[in-house]
Amino acid sequence: MLEELKERVCKANIELFNKGLVIYTWGNVSAIDRQKLLIVIKPSGIPYTELTPDQMVVVDLNGRIVEGSLNPSSDTATHLELYNNFDEVGSIIHTHSTWATIWAQVGKDIPPLGTTHADHFYGSIPCTRDLTENEVLNDYERNTAKVILECFKDKEYTNIPGVLVNKHGVFVWGKNPEEAIYNAVVMEEIAKMAYYTLLMNGNNKKIEKYILDKHYLRKHGQNAYYGQNIHK
Amino acid sequence: MLEELKERVCKANIELFNKGLVIYTWGNVSAIDRQKLLIVIKPSGIPYTELTPDQMVVVDLNGRIVEGSLNPSSDTATHLELYNNFDEVGSIIHTHSTWATIWAQVGKDIPPLGTTHADHFYGSIPCTRDLTENEVLNDYERNTAKVILECFKDKEYTNIPGVLVNKHGVFVWGKNPEEAIYNAVVMEEIAKMAYYTLLMNGNNKKIEKYILDKHYLRKHGQNAYYGQNIHK
Amino acid sequence: MLEELKERVCKANIELFNKGLVIYTWGNVSAIDRQKLLIVIKPSGIPYTELTPDQMVVVDLNGRIVEGSLNPSSDTATHLELYNNFDEVGSIIHTHSTWATIWAQVGKDIPPLGTTHADHFYGSIPCTRDLTENEVLNDYERNTAKVILECFKDKEYTNIPGVLVNKHGVFVWGKNPEEAIYNAVVMEEIAKMAYYTLLMNGNNKKIEKYILDKHYLRKHGQNAYYGQNIHK
Amino acid sequence: MLEELKERVCKANIELFNKGLVIYTWGNVSAIDRQKLLIVIKPSGIPYTELTPDQMVVVDLNGRIVEGSLNPSSDTATHLELYNNFDEVGSIIHTHSTWATIWAQVGKDIPPLGTTHADHFYGSIPCTRDLTENEVLNDYERNTAKVILECFKDKEYTNIPGVLVNKHGVFVWGKNPEEAIYNAVVMEEIAKMAYYTLLMNGNNKKIEKYILDKHYLRKHGQNAYYGQNIHK
Repeated sequence: MLEELKERVCKANIELFNKGLVIYTWGNVSAIDRQKLLIVIKPSGIPYTELTPDQMVVVDLNGRIVEGSLNPSSDTATHLELYNNFDEVGSIIHTHSTWATIWAQVGKDIPPLGTTHADHFYGSIPCTRDLTENEVLNDYERNTAKVILECFKDKEYTNIPGVLVNKHGVFVWGKNPEEAIYNAVVMEEIAKMAYYTLLMNGNNKKIEKYILDKHYLRKHGQNAYYGQNIHK
Repeated sequence: MLEELKERVCKANIELFNKGLVIYTWGNVSAIDRQKLLIVIKPSGIPYTELTPDQMVVVDLNGRIVEGSLNPSSDTATHLELYNNFDEVGSIIHTHSTWATIWAQVGKDIPPLGTTHADHFYGSIPCTRDLTENEVLNDYERNTAKVILECFKDKEYTNIPGVLVNKHGVFVWGKNPEEAIYNAVVMEEIAKMAYYTLLMNGNNKKIEKYILDKHYLRKHGQNAYYGQNIHK
Repeated sequence: MLEELKERVCKANIELFNKGLVIYTWGNVSAIDRQKLLIVIKPSGIPYTELTPDQMVVVDLNGRIVEGSLNPSSDTATHLELYNNFDEVGSIIHTHSTWATIWAQVGKDIPPLGTTHADHFYGSIPCTRDLTENEVLNDYERNTAKVILECFKDKEYTNIPGVLVNKHGVFVWGKNPEEAIYNAVVMEEIAKMAYYTLLMNGNNKKIEKYILDKHYLRKHGQNAYYGQNIHK
Repeated sequence: MLEELKERVCKANIELFNKGLVIYTWGNVSAIDRQKLLIVIKPSGIPYTELTPDQMVVVDLNGRIVEGSLNPSSDTATHLELYNNFDEVGSIIHTHSTWATIWAQVGKDIPPLGTTHADHFYGSIPCTRDLTENEVLNDYERNTAKVILECFKDKEYTNIPGVLVNKHGVFVWGKNPEEAIYNAVVMEEIAKMAYYTLLMNGNNKKIEKYILDKHYLRKHGQNAYYGQNIHK
């Protein structure tokens, strides 16, 4: 069942490790088949160096295990809630990558301070509010998704494919596992650059809206002219 | 004698090097056989790239060499005093890993600033007081353990498996060499994240107790639901 | 056509990646044949790990594609405008390398704070002004070169082979692709050292003019005495 | 002539590169044969990846080339002046390693902030004063040694085997090339740790003299008890 997607999800999980975004078992990649409404996700607590495609767990949107002998990631409920609300997302990643997590611990949005940011994220990358005690005690992982969704009430999740979870880590997404990995690597690099920029210049100004537009739209949408597959 | 434990201790010492926690001869791993009350420890001053299991030194709890032709680590007395007091510890590691040592030089406890910390350490990681001149001049290595033990008068060493020794470095422990290595790698990463969080936000708040509980207990104890071997 | 130059430009692009100056497709190298007035440049959006010499695009100084089936780098117009004005430049590189980009986001010139800088850059490395909205909306890439040229009205581009583009990244150049790569690596290291020097000592003094002269001229020009090919 | 020493000096130069202390041609190792009063030193401007033992240059204490077809390091006069004054030194290294150079640019001594420092350097690592214009214009490289020597008027160069040259880089030494490399790697790590300690705690206290003594003398001198060759 879903053999090709399992291969890609397995490979993306291993790629998290190869790109230095995770150590041991500190992150997970999932992907959804929107026709079958089934999610493929990393099993909980298995090191990346031992992962095989047949270990991937298949769950439905209610979190019921449809296939697989291992427990799915303990963050599965967060993934599911995001898939339920972000219709165009095909793959979701959670990590504690160093610089994104430092930002999450600092507890602030990452402002767009340069074109590297603008090339990939069309505005500030939000940081969620803290969860309340009640939200932590009852259905914690689903509530983690809910505070993420609050951040995107007035932002497009398709233009800003990532979020900091306050004092926790990062969730990133994309159309498919390969794009989600790309966004996770990019967000880590942007988080690092923004950290050091603000450490030196505490009150650094955001880039102008017209630069943000230029760079984001040079790479995305109908008038993009970057790369080989433009105007499609 | 203790061939299997020597293999594991040797491998763990080499792993310290492979994980980037030590250079040259700047750290050591030991493990105890609680039945025989014998400790296996790295020989002093031998580089990791040349270590072999038969070079491991076997000492008793008084520090007498029971087997081995090399001198044991010069920190042996610290290890022994900790084994004498921490009944559930099976392996101890000492390093000067970069970020933990920077924290030790800063001389403050590492507060729990995020869930990465809470997943592994159930509260602040303490930093010892300075040793007095008398404690340094007489039985220095054993007194190093004694100031560590002071830190755990009102903390559980099983829940907080590591400590900063003021202006010195770090001691970390676990049930066995593999768990101790895991804790040493985790503590180094947590030290780095906490450093940069506080550098940006000097007065950063600790995470709430209910988040600390949630994350620590999601992974440890009777109600844990992380990984594949839960509820055991 | 220009097979040897394509080989060198392809190799230099791959070297950008191997030296850690770029990830994915975040930079490009070009070179010019000054006899034929043709430029060889990286195709847009192709990863370094897949680059082959025959994919390099050949354009004339007006940006018309003379050979190649792929789109040239979206930054091509910046390269061309620089070749048109910097007669002695044979190769140009654009990257978002981490430390140079952090400096560009900080938005200040990199002052000469040590002899490592003085050995390679004969004075401050300038940072451009921001582009106006009009300059961004109309002919953005060519205008990026124009604000670079403004910085060199009173500086020698041959002595200071690099520039920060405000809130964007870095352009570096040299007589040929190999020298340009060398300058790009050096500028990244200098940017890092200068960052940490100023972070500690906010008002750090520049090196004295007589040290700047000594170190730059020890390595460059008629009286150089560094290396094996001196006095030539 | 001096074939064994050439082998070791060549290997040590390559080791500088492998340990990440230099890029391209940014450093050099020499060693002296105290019987023959001849120095073996790296040729100027040759990359480490191409170095062979027969390229090493042999010079006498006046800097005359005794053997070798290449120019010796442009820093040769600094090495010679140090050998002339530091009788027990057998090998000298000069680099622009990142953290030591940042400290040199900051322009302050590295205070002993922890036992990692005390294990290897018996007190602060000094930073030279700036050279005057006259000292730079006339016999610059020899004068670089002279400001180093000023730092050791009231310090033992055998106990503090390294120095920061203001706004420049680092010189390190040892009994032989292998010990000098060790000291260079250690000093880079100490410089990094001290930087981050002081960045967080601007007015950090030095370690107590009794800790400095304990750690330095645990590893060095007649009462050392670290390693396998103690009491010799």
